[in-house]
Parts: sequence; structure tokens; C-alpha cells
Amino acid sequence: MTTGGPQPHVIIVGGGFGGLWATRALAGDDVRITLIDRRNHHLFQPLLYQVATAGLSSPDIAAPLRHILRRQRNVEVRLGEVTGIDPPSRTVTLADGGVLDYDYLLLASGATHAYFGHDEWSGDAPGLKTLDDALAIRRRLLLAFERAEACDDPEERAAWLSFAIVGGGPTGVELAGTLAEIARHTLKHEFRRIDPSQARVRLVEAGPRVLASFPESLSDKARKQLERLGVEVVTGTAVSAIDAHGYALGDTFVPARTVLWAAGVAASGLGALLDAQRDRAGRVLVAPDLSVPGHPEIFVAGDLASVQQDGKPVPGVAPAAKQMGSHVAHAIRARIAGQAAPTFRYRDFGNLATIGRMAAVVDLHGFKLSGLLAWWFWLAAHVFFLIGFRNRLLVLINWAWAYWSYQRHARIILGQDKPRT
Amino acid sequence: MTTGGPQPHVIIVGGGFGGLWATRALAGDDVRITLIDRRNHHLFQPLLYQVATAGLSSPDIAAPLRHILRRQRNVEVRLGEVTGIDPPSRTVTLADGGVLDYDYLLLASGATHAYFGHDEWSGDAPGLKTLDDALAIRRRLLLAFERAEACDDPEERAAWLSFAIVGGGPTGVELAGTLAEIARHTLKHEFRRIDPSQARVRLVEAGPRVLASFPESLSDKARKQLERLGVEVVTGTAVSAIDAHGYALGDTFVPARTVLWAAGVAASGLGALLDAQRDRAGRVLVAPDLSVPGHPEIFVAGDLASVQQDGKPVPGVAPAAKQMGSHVAHAIRARIAGQAAPTFRYRDFGNLATIGRMAAVVDLHGFKLSGLLAWWFWLAAHVFFLIGFRNRLLVLINWAWAYWSYQRHARIILGQDKPRT
Repeated sequence: MTTGGPQPHVIIVGGGFGGLWATRALAGDDVRITLIDRRNHHLFQPLLYQVATAGLSSPDIAAPLRHILRRQRNVEVRLGEVTGIDPPSRTVTLADGGVLDYDYLLLASGATHAYFGHDEWSGDAPGLKTLDDALAIRRRLLLAFERAEACDDPEERAAWLSFAIVGGGPTGVELAGTLAEIARHTLKHEFRRIDPSQARVRLVEAGPRVLASFPESLSDKARKQLERLGVEVVTGTAVSAIDAHGYALGDTFVPARTVLWAAGVAASGLGALLDAQRDRAGRVLVAPDLSVPGHPEIFVAGDLASVQQDGKPVPGVAPAAKQMGSHVAHAIRARIAGQAAPTFRYRDFGNLATIGRMAAVVDLHGFKLSGLLAWWFWLAAHVFFLIGFRNRLLVLINWAWAYWSYQRHARIILGQDKPRT
Repeated sequence: MTTGGPQPHVIIVGGGFGGLWATRALAGDDVRITLIDRRNHHLFQPLLYQVATAGLSSPDIAAPLRHILRRQRNVEVRLGEVTGIDPPSRTVTLADGGVLDYDYLLLASGATHAYFGHDEWSGDAPGLKTLDDALAIRRRLLLAFERAEACDDPEERAAWLSFAIVGGGPTGVELAGTLAEIARHTLKHEFRRIDPSQARVRLVEAGPRVLASFPESLSDKARKQLERLGVEVVTGTAVSAIDAHGYALGDTFVPARTVLWAAGVAASGLGALLDAQRDRAGRVLVAPDLSVPGHPEIFVAGDLASVQQDGKPVPGVAPAAKQMGSHVAHAIRARIAGQAAPTFRYRDFGNLATIGRMAAVVDLHGFKLSGLLAWWFWLAAHVFFLIGFRNRLLVLINWAWAYWSYQRHARIILGQDKPRT
């Protein structure tokens, strides 16, 4: 390591798993770090669907970045949005006009929804990436049952009780399973004119099976568990239209007042600010050490990085982002010491997805679990990885309560003053 | 009670303390009740300031009305906004076009902020009545510290660290005390450029003392406790102007980017839909049985009712609203039975206000407490009255955690996509 000279300045953009893990891994290094994020919190994204479905509150799965990093004295947290990157002058520009110099830059700003050329669907089929998204979806779901109850026209009522989730990946499966549970159990006895259990919850997947990243046997199990919860699973059919009144499968229009989008992600727009090659989803094609080709001082991690390993893409999951973040810390340390940066190697520990009450699938390299046991495994893993003791304890209590009682404590409609439905 | 005939239909507007207590008190009666509220939840308003100051989450102090009343089969809950009342035809009109007939009507729609003829201040000095208000205030408070940290101009930075709360009643005192606590303790160690404890928190009260509804000795104690927490208390001075840059006291302009309004309430606009006498704050002057003079089938309860007792107004506090709600249930029962309705009598059990960490004042008719003991009393009373077992337990855990650690778990900025600051 260099000694005596001025401390290298590392700018890390994004306080998700990639950025936060890189920041922490540099805690003991003689560097000055600025962590920039548009939001003031780190979000435990794997549980975001629980906020959308009213099982958890926002603070249960989020913690202020400043608070997480308060004891790491070599970090400054800055709330701000990066609007420009200039590699020749090694500067980053913020929306508030601030200009920051860097010696090393890590871009870890993640991904956003992608509508595959149908951006006009975004208003009628919201996606789930941020806490604000989750609260907007929660509001829509809860208001749909309210509207159905207040409605005298049977057709309109049926449309309010018709829900579709587009995309059969983990998020779509989680949303569909939990929504079916809410309709069948949580809302039981609460309405006087409608029977919430008559709600139609449909999961639409264009590919041949749900949870395509899992072995086929687990996809089958997941489908059966979804159907047991009351979800109608439609595979091999793409949605061809979405508007405020419903969606179309091929030529058939299905009335539905609530459509949720869980079908596609695109990398954050930050990649486009670099003069670098990107894949179709907008991810930056990185060198084996996760740096940007031609720019050994710029790194990309997490969902914004396109990394191939053994001929397969490294998946856009939390463990991969964390591993990339830690790797970038090593690489920066190596660069500062004048050494070659190591090659990134993704260690795949397995794949988990939850489906609903006491149902999940787990694939640990051939060791497969499904059903209740898988759910316990999933729960333990997720609570273990939640940041901060307080959150873990309270999330456990909230869950215990929700599962004993079938209740979901966060069924509070917020932001009603400016309703979006 | 009438038997055999059609069930009388009771419409209750507002699911706050007045409306909810009336609804519950009619659980065993042979009536059909429709409870109408603009929001889907009952709110435990005495703890709303804790949501605004990031100590509690929304679901900690709110529960869906449907859920609270799920087992009371004679109630239908309707999410909706009343836009018209027609006493001759005994109908209520909703914003969604619905028209409902009633035999008995209870208006319990509460109060809102009043800016005493300065409605132009509302954008720059938000008030605290709903959960959406609380989240907007939370966002402002947290963003102010972020802006100060990001700001290089010393004057602007000082303005971001200058906070004013207008109004020295219980809400103003609670907000000021808690905000001082956040600046001095919660945010310690989290910023690198600013020292949050340098924030200036000012409580401005036009009258001669804070907590004017308490005995003078407790007002003095409250002032001293506020000052110990770091709040600057200004009494006897009215705010003469408020804009985005600050506020004026007389001719002196004080730069401050965050001004909160806790100075005045006005009754909900629903009272104006009746052809009834109202006081200056818009409250309906009711008969001794809480009915509207000339309309024995229409009642008013809670903050919307103007009730005089022993020459003094009944205060706009939760216990008074609950008592009025229960009384109206009795009065409706008497009317149905063809008997005279009893006269309402407010039983004043005392007055509590909290100031901050371990500081409060309690006045139980001459028995006065202040400081730590008063705070424990206040805590026990508030947790005891929180609706629902789950909430009570979790609120206690949240508090215990907050007080051990000085941390406030809900410091999550939401709704940033449409910032209002």
C-alpha cells in the first residue's frame, strides 16, 4: 500500500448489496470513500415483496446508509443522483451541481424494470424495485378490494377482483402466492358484500415454466404449490397488451384492474454514461477483474455488471452482488499496491425462492427441497442476512404474528391524497 | 327496542375515536351500521408525532377499520368521502356517486389544520393530522440534515439546520422535544461535514406559555425540560410570515428551511354541509345530548362537536371523543326505544403531554407529575390505549429499542420520487 501520499479517493455509486459490501470491505484501508445513493437507505430487496403485500413495514427491511456506516470513519455518505461521469478528468457530476474527483470509481446502481419496448404499460402495470414502488403496489392491492366492495356492477366488481402478475420469476411467484393468501385468508370475514376468496389471481409467464432458473422438478413443485394456494398459473403465453381495464393474452382480453409487472429488468441508466460496451439489458461488459475495459480505475458490480462465467451469465441475485462488491474492494487494494487485480469468481451457493405461507423451493446444487422444509430454510437464510439486529428480531416477530394469525399488520393505505389508481 | 320492524340504519362518518367508539358501543344493538371513512385505518393520533419523527412506523399506530370490526357483524365499513348530507331526505352522498339512506347519522370526522387566514403558509409549514402528513414531515426533517451535509455555503447550511415549530400545544412540544433529541443523539456520529447537534430547534408560541391547557407550574416544568433537551422556547410572539426560506417573528426574519405547523385546528368541513350553527373553529354547536338542534336523528361527536360544560369547552382530546362516541350510541338506543336521550357529561380524568426522552407532564386534577415519572405514566397510558395486542407489543419493543440505543428505526425517506421540499 502507498504510505505518506494523499489518500486515494474511492467513489462508490449505489448503496445496495454491491456498493455496501465494497464499502465495508474497504473499512481498514487507507482510502477515503464517498458512497453516493439517490435514497438514504440500504434496502434488503429480497423481502421487498413483503412490504408490497403488507406483511412488513418499510423500516423492517431498510436501514439508513449513514446509520449502517456510522462507525466506518473513512466513509462519507452523500444523498444524491449521479448525472455525469467523465473518465478523462476522473470526475462525477451530481444532479445538485456537485462535482467530485475520484481515483477509483465503482458503479453499483443496480437495475430497474424493463417493459421490453412497452413503456406505455408502466402506469398500468407497476414493477417492484424500491420501497416507494412497494407502497404504491400495496395501495393498489388494498384499494382493489375496497373498490370491489363499494361497487354494485357485477362486471366491474369482478374486474376489481381480477389480479394478474406478469412474469414467473422469483418476484412474480412471491407476489402471486402472497396475494392469493391475502385473498383467501387475511381478508376473510372483513368484507360484507364481496367474498375476497373469489379473487382471481393469475401468474402469466411467457416461457415454458415458472422459476426458470431452477431445475425443472422444482419448477413443477412451485407450480403445484402456487395452484394449491389458489393461483392460476399460465405459462407459454406472453401478455400482448395492458391498459387500465385489463390485459390481453394473444387475442383474448382479460378484464383486470390490477396488473403487476415482474417480467423484466434493465440495468440502471448509469452504464450509459460510460463509453463502454453493454449487453442488451444495458449491463456493462466488464473485464475479468470487474473493471471497465480500458479503464482500470473504474469498476462495475451487481446488477449493472454483465459477467460471464463458464459460459453462463452470473445471475442478478444478492449473493452475486455482495461477492462482486467485496471483489472490487480487493481489486482496488491491489491497484493501489501496484499489483495485478485478481479475477472475479462467483461462488454459487444455491438458489431459493418462496411461494407463500410455508411453501418454498430450495436448490443447493442437486440437493433439492420444497414445501414446508424449504420455507423454513428460506426464512432462516433471509432473517440471517437481514442487516442489523433490531430488524432481524422485529421481522421475526412480525412474521411469527403473521403466520400464527394469518394477519398482515401493514395493511395501511398510504399516499391516498394523491391516488394513482 | 323495536322488534320485527326493519332494522334502523345508522351511518357513522369517521373512524377516529368518536366514530369507532360509537360503532363498537352499538355492537349488540338491533341496528345496521355503515361506517364511512376516507382512509382505510383507525389512527392512534396521540402517537402520530412518533411516526413524523421516525420512531415508529405507520402500522405501529394504525389498524385497518375492517380488521378492527371484522367480528362485529352489524357493521359495514365503506371507504369513501362524504360530499353531501340532505337531512330532509335523510341521505348522504359520497364522492364516488353512492347515495345512502340513514335513520340516524353520526358525524365524527374530526379536525384539520387551520392557518388562521394564512392558507398560503400550508405548503411551507405542514401540519400533522394524518399518516401521510407524518411521512411528509419525516421526509422534510431527514432531508434537511442531508441537504445541510451536501451544502458548501455556510449560510445555506445554517438555514437547513434551523427548525421551527409553530404552536406550543402538546403536538408542538412533542415535535420540538423529539427533534432536539434526534439532532443531539440519534444522528450523532453519522455525518462527516455537519454536527447535527448544532441544529437550532425553536418552538414558537404566541401565547404567554407552552401547554396552556395545563396548570402554570407544569407549563414552567415543560419549558425547562424542553430547554434541557436543547429547544429554544419563544413565547408571547406570533409568527408573522412563513415562506420557503424561513419565518418572521415581528419584523425579524429567521432563515429556516423547515417550519412545522402545530398552532391551530379547524373542524372538518363536514359540519358546513349541515344547516347548523357553528363556532369560529367550524365546530357544530350541539344540543346537550350531542344531537344537532332541530335534527334529533343527527349527532356530532369528537373534534367536530362544540360542547360547553360548566362554562368551559370540552377539549379536543381522545378521551373526550371516545366518551362522546359512546354517548351517541346510548342516545341512538334511547331514540329507537322512544325514550329521551340522556345529557352528555364529559369525565375529565386528567391531562398528559410528553416532551421527549423520559420527560413529560401529567395533571390529574391537582395531582401533578413531571419528568421521568410522568414519562413512565404517559408511556403506560398510551401503550395501554393502543388498539390491538400486536401493536402494543411491537410499539413497546420499538420504544425499548429506541430508548436503549437512542436510535429511531424508521429513518427511511419515502416518497422521494416526488419530493416536496
